[in-house]
Amino acid sequence: MRLREFQELIERIYGDKDRGRGQEKTYMWFAEEVGELTRALRRDDEENLAEEFADVLAWLTTLASIRGVDLEEVVLQKYGAGCPYCEAVPCAC
Amino acid sequence: MRLREFQELIERIYGDKDRGRGQEKTYMWFAEEVGELTRALRRDDEENLAEEFADVLAWLTTLASIRGVDLEEVVLQKYGAGCPYCEAVPCAC
Repeated sequence: MRLREFQELIERIYGDKDRGRGQEKTYMWFAEEVGELTRALRRDDEENLAEEFADVLAWLTTLASIRGVDLEEVVLQKYGAGCPYCEAVPCAC
Repeated sequence: MRLREFQELIERIYGDKDRGRGQEKTYMWFAEEVGELTRALRRDDEENLAEEFADVLAWLTTLASIRGVDLEEVVLQKYGAGCPYCEAVPCAC
C-alpha cells in the first residue's frame, strides 16, 4: 500500500472524528499510543509490539491530515535521495 | 511510494547505523523528534512542520526495522478493513 493510500484510508475512517476533536485532543491520543509502544519495546512484548507500531503510525498520520501535511510527499522530499545531511546511502554522517 | 519501500529506503540509509546504536539509543532519537514535532504543532510553525512529521515517521520506521516489524503489514492487518473496533468506514465508535 502506498503511504498516500494509507493516509487516505485513515482519513476515510477517522478524518471527520479527529478533525472534530481537534489537534490538541488528537495529539493526546497519539501521545498515549507512543507510551504504549514504549512499554511494548521496554518489555519485549512481542504480542503487542506490531499493533503498537500500527497505532502510532495511524495517529501520526491523522495528525498530519489535520495539519494538511502529505506524509508521502514530505518523506520523499527529505529522504528520497538518501541521508539529507551527507546525501549518502548508507548514511556516512 | 509504498510504505514497505519507504521502510526499505530508511533501512538502506540508516539500518546498520541504527542497529549498531541499539533500540534504546535509537528510541532517544525518536523521542527527540516527537518533541520537535510537538513544538512545531504547538507553535503553528508551518516552516518546520512537514519536516518534523517526516522525521518522526523515519525514526518510527527504523525502530520497527530494529524489531523486525513490517509497518505496511501491521497497518494493513489492523486498519485495512476499517476501524478495528466497529469495523465501519467511517468509524462509528
